[in-house]
Amino acid sequence: MGGSLESLKARLADVNALRVASTVLDWDQQAFMPAGAANARAQHLGNLQRMAHEMFTDDATLKALEGAVAESDDDVALLRVVKRDLDLSTKIPSALVAEKGHLAGIAHEEWVHARATNDFDSFAPTLERMFEIARQEAEYFGYTDDIYDALLDQYEEGATAAEVRTMFDSIRGPQVELVKAIQASAPVDDSALYGEWSQSAQAELTREMVASLGFDFNRGRQDTAPHPFCTNFSVNDVRLTTRYKDYLPSSIMGSMHEAGHGLYEQNSPEKWDLTFLAGGVSLGLHESQSRLWENIVGRSEEFWGVWFPKLKSAFPCLAVESASEFYRLVNKVKPSLIRVEADELTYNLHVLIRFEIESAILKGELKVKDLPDAWNAKYEEYLGVTPESNSVGCLQDVHWSQGSIGYFPTYTMGNLLSYQIWNSLSNDIANPNELIARGEFGPILVWLRTKIYARGRYMTPKQLVLDVTGKPMAADDYLNGLGAKYRALYNL
Amino acid sequence: MGGSLESLKARLADVNALRVASTVLDWDQQAFMPAGAANARAQHLGNLQRMAHEMFTDDATLKALEGAVAESDDDVALLRVVKRDLDLSTKIPSALVAEKGHLAGIAHEEWVHARATNDFDSFAPTLERMFEIARQEAEYFGYTDDIYDALLDQYEEGATAAEVRTMFDSIRGPQVELVKAIQASAPVDDSALYGEWSQSAQAELTREMVASLGFDFNRGRQDTAPHPFCTNFSVNDVRLTTRYKDYLPSSIMGSMHEAGHGLYEQNSPEKWDLTFLAGGVSLGLHESQSRLWENIVGRSEEFWGVWFPKLKSAFPCLAVESASEFYRLVNKVKPSLIRVEADELTYNLHVLIRFEIESAILKGELKVKDLPDAWNAKYEEYLGVTPESNSVGCLQDVHWSQGSIGYFPTYTMGNLLSYQIWNSLSNDIANPNELIARGEFGPILVWLRTKIYARGRYMTPKQLVLDVTGKPMAADDYLNGLGAKYRALYNL
Repeated sequence: MGGSLESLKARLADVNALRVASTVLDWDQQAFMPAGAANARAQHLGNLQRMAHEMFTDDATLKALEGAVAESDDDVALLRVVKRDLDLSTKIPSALVAEKGHLAGIAHEEWVHARATNDFDSFAPTLERMFEIARQEAEYFGYTDDIYDALLDQYEEGATAAEVRTMFDSIRGPQVELVKAIQASAPVDDSALYGEWSQSAQAELTREMVASLGFDFNRGRQDTAPHPFCTNFSVNDVRLTTRYKDYLPSSIMGSMHEAGHGLYEQNSPEKWDLTFLAGGVSLGLHESQSRLWENIVGRSEEFWGVWFPKLKSAFPCLAVESASEFYRLVNKVKPSLIRVEADELTYNLHVLIRFEIESAILKGELKVKDLPDAWNAKYEEYLGVTPESNSVGCLQDVHWSQGSIGYFPTYTMGNLLSYQIWNSLSNDIANPNELIARGEFGPILVWLRTKIYARGRYMTPKQLVLDVTGKPMAADDYLNGLGAKYRALYNL
Repeated sequence: MGGSLESLKARLADVNALRVASTVLDWDQQAFMPAGAANARAQHLGNLQRMAHEMFTDDATLKALEGAVAESDDDVALLRVVKRDLDLSTKIPSALVAEKGHLAGIAHEEWVHARATNDFDSFAPTLERMFEIARQEAEYFGYTDDIYDALLDQYEEGATAAEVRTMFDSIRGPQVELVKAIQASAPVDDSALYGEWSQSAQAELTREMVASLGFDFNRGRQDTAPHPFCTNFSVNDVRLTTRYKDYLPSSIMGSMHEAGHGLYEQNSPEKWDLTFLAGGVSLGLHESQSRLWENIVGRSEEFWGVWFPKLKSAFPCLAVESASEFYRLVNKVKPSLIRVEADELTYNLHVLIRFEIESAILKGELKVKDLPDAWNAKYEEYLGVTPESNSVGCLQDVHWSQGSIGYFPTYTMGNLLSYQIWNSLSNDIANPNELIARGEFGPILVWLRTKIYARGRYMTPKQLVLDVTGKPMAADDYLNGLGAKYRALYNL
């Protein structure tokens, strides 16, 4: 019987090697690969991903799993997550997996073209088909109450549409109201943050900054990529990327964000490295850590008390004269059209709109052809802005074209959880902002490591939130924290 | 029957994907990977290489190969090279493969330690064991005349020890004599080439230089690595590396050398990309191209006529005043102890020594414990220098510790073939050095592409040499070319 556990582990090690190989090829593609290599890379990635899928979903894996007898609590957790992942990978018939993969390729081309030419109608039939595939996937996964549950669970184990709706119902009113109050107050001029900034100075400063948080460059790197991301090949090999734009905080806050993901991965236990227990437990929890380090630490007044002098010395032409002024500018709230450029406060409203729309389409309450009107109406209602074209409206995100439907709410879960976890941390570490003011992140990192990072996928995300914060995910910590911060910033 | 050919090709595409994945991981390890990631990377590489080996040597591959019916000349060539590779991969029992892999790991550690502490004796038993494994491999491969043939054939299909001996017999006398004559002439002072040179200026200049040869940066890159190499993941994805030392020509000639390998790979036919027919036909032919671009083009007086002004503008402090002076300095001949730092002329004598020694050990004519004495005697005889320690003597190369026995002669074959091929090119392109003098490498590259690069592994190396140069590999072109160059340089 132990033989089955051993053979399961050996098999999973090969699956891990194949997945990591794909991940390295993908990292290289985004950070270094010459443009001309795209076709060969697509073929290699396709073959490797198919081999990983075939090896994982082979009957031999199921047989080994069924015969495996746990010899420790770790084994119990391992068998649970492998069963979950295997279910997710085998419930969908391979014909539908293949059809989705094929459609995703076509849809990506069409989406790129539709966005470039502001031609939603040409993309609508393919998008309609992708939503139909999502509906079929949901039926195969199975659900009790809401078709959305089945899709959301892929990204956030155990989360339900009802919870997401409760979450958004809690924050919709206060957030819209707060944004409107800010809109009515004196505008903040952050034009000083735009300019031509030295890329090498940004590279050096952001490297120093994320190292100060505790990111270990002996076990990681930071490179550049058009769309920043964090990936990892092992607990000891975590790769961040950032990008350099004319908006100076873009690289800085982007690096802090990716470093949050990176700290989670670097502090996964060594003993689980390269196994299915390693790393982040869910997208929501992962995002809570990128948001915690980016927003709660990185957009705090205390943080810039330490880093503003270094910023000024790296960018002597920056026409901002004090840490508190920089703090005010870097927290400017301005409703805008583009999600990925949104400030901390309005970001959730972008997510809310996407959740409401994808949920309505899945249930047949909204037709794909009417998506642009619904999108624009919601942007007007929640954010007071109206897209001048679908390109900067409902065509801006790649997610739906790839069949990532039911994914968006994890961004807002991350925001809520970041404050909820921070408050819990603040109960154990008196006044953590004093630590931030001294640039001492060690105790904060140790707390997060102990409570979250060191637990990998050992518990479910819900168990982990309950264990760490003493309650299920809720909006109150977030609303209180954000409200206090922005009322003070805008003298409301 | 066609089904077998299709299934063979599909299977080989997966083998290719697994091998390329390993190659990307290896490239990353040498160029970018953080130091702390070494253990995980070793595990991933081990798993991927094992999977590639298992998939390739699986009975299903042999069955598909046996059932495959060629539908074109390309198929005939493909089946031939697959059969050869499969033979090489299956003739050795897996127990011996595993033992060698295990011993190579231990031997590498021991070799590093022995070299660092100048302690040959501690390494000798393991090296003895590695030679014993090489002997067993040779028996499994099989041979007619000379045990060395079986090992050499892995690296250079069809080459024999008798040919290698003929090759060295031809060049030993003239080369030793020429080196002695140079030693007796006025010494060249190349101290101006040593200094602290801007790395970014070297990166920019070498990039421009290799691009001018025809290396396509839309389908390739150049990065830095401690031990420069060229690797490729596709005909459209060729990665060069270089390094920056206090000897300025180190990066320049190193980049030219790797670009020679890279041009070979980038000009392999697109139709064979990702198949077993793609890329270089043998180590000797590959080396002939790195040597041709490095030495015949890059160390020519005409080349520096074009590039010296750019070199001076990139390195204004360089105390060399003319192209012809730089040409003289960059071709300085000085017998030395270290192979990888040897000049063009003495390089072969280093290789000769290694061939004579490994051949003698394989045949039992020399005992491993007596290797240091034999080594030092030969360095004294051929190069007039004696290592002050084994660390800079018989412990300098990694090859034997890894079981790469029978590999060294391909370096000298590359040198001979570079001149032989160049003379053949000179019959078709009147005075190619005039093209070099104008910095126009297009016609040279086109000729090499047509004659060599576009042929991938379609012919055997011997067929290719015969087809391109009209004769088998011989030493006369090389000796004449090198003799004329150095007699002129040294006024002999």
